[in-house]
Amino acid sequence: MLDFTLENISADEVERLRAVYQPLAESVRELIDATVRTEVDAAAVAAAKAEIDSATARLRQKQTAGSFGVRYLSTGERMAWGNAVIGIRNPIAPPVQIRRDAHGTSVCDFYLGAAYEGPPGHVHGGVAALVLDHLLGEAASDGINPRLTGTISFRYVRATRLGDLHAEAVITRTEGVKTYAVGHLADAEGVTVEAEGVFIQPRWARDGSE
Amino acid sequence: MLDFTLENISADEVERLRAVYQPLAESVRELIDATVRTEVDAAAVAAAKAEIDSATARLRQKQTAGSFGVRYLSTGERMAWGNAVIGIRNPIAPPVQIRRDAHGTSVCDFYLGAAYEGPPGHVHGGVAALVLDHLLGEAASDGINPRLTGTISFRYVRATRLGDLHAEAVITRTEGVKTYAVGHLADAEGVTVEAEGVFIQPRWARDGSE
Repeated sequence: MLDFTLENISADEVERLRAVYQPLAESVRELIDATVRTEVDAAAVAAAKAEIDSATARLRQKQTAGSFGVRYLSTGERMAWGNAVIGIRNPIAPPVQIRRDAHGTSVCDFYLGAAYEGPPGHVHGGVAALVLDHLLGEAASDGINPRLTGTISFRYVRATRLGDLHAEAVITRTEGVKTYAVGHLADAEGVTVEAEGVFIQPRWARDGSE
Repeated sequence: MLDFTLENISADEVERLRAVYQPLAESVRELIDATVRTEVDAAAVAAAKAEIDSATARLRQKQTAGSFGVRYLSTGERMAWGNAVIGIRNPIAPPVQIRRDAHGTSVCDFYLGAAYEGPPGHVHGGVAALVLDHLLGEAASDGINPRLTGTISFRYVRATRLGDLHAEAVITRTEGVKTYAVGHLADAEGVTVEAEGVFIQPRWARDGSE
């Protein structure tokens, strides 16, 4: 059902690709923030727009037909560079970098600026859900075989300030193909959103086929 | 707690601002898609990046100190142009345009491309949550006073294909400051994600102060 691109990309080649495309996405993230916040006049906007359209035309000269997909490295590692939360090539992604601490908890520290706004000065509740959905899913997975969200619930304790944020998630139990996970998002003053979800190993990942 | 910028902006001025800034955000959305999907070489990426950085510098010459916020028009209408889901000035927003049909259901039709990917070729589960959280919140609100998410749950029926999508939401009941709403996301083959939530009128919006 879901097609993964299988590529035996070497570690050297991955680093070469990262060096080319990661700084590009970082530049576009800066541009997104500047676009939301700018107050320059119509002439300055027109000049900026012309440069942006020119850059887009350059990048479109050769491009993948659909979406980026997930590419597998020769190590078996997933390269989800287009992902909306963790994709280093996706300017929409903060991007969140998830690590496992010594207790097996999946944790991340990240910054959300003006582009992630809902209530004035605060993180959109749905953006909190976006990041937590990904983090709980990652906690529920083993790093190779993804588990996808079956059901997930969020409780909003209070509004989350835009700025430096922290989130963490952990598995509570596994029953067959179902893995249960809980987690939360926090700003400088403490927990703002709590999450719990059930994550399911997709059928196409159960029979050993990739 | 949440600061709204109060501005008595006239309808003419709104149209002038829209004509300047909406096409800019549309150009940046195209650039985001091109950035995720490009396969051009390092030299072409460097040339594009230089143009992007130049555009960013132009836009940064005058900008709002924090996030865009929500500005009120002289009509009382909210102008949430920086919003992560509906903001016409926010390149991260698809943007979703919500309308009410004859039965009072809040509906939207929108396109999600490569930048919203989770599983290969499919919408990130958290992006589905992001859009539905906003749509149910909008359904639960009266168009002037926002209601914020208290709790919300999502059930993923199956993966949602990237492409043209439809979502709708409706209030099921209201009890005091709590409004209950349900909704769903659908792709061309039918419903993919179901949502239900409780939305709460924030304290600062209950006493008539804005």
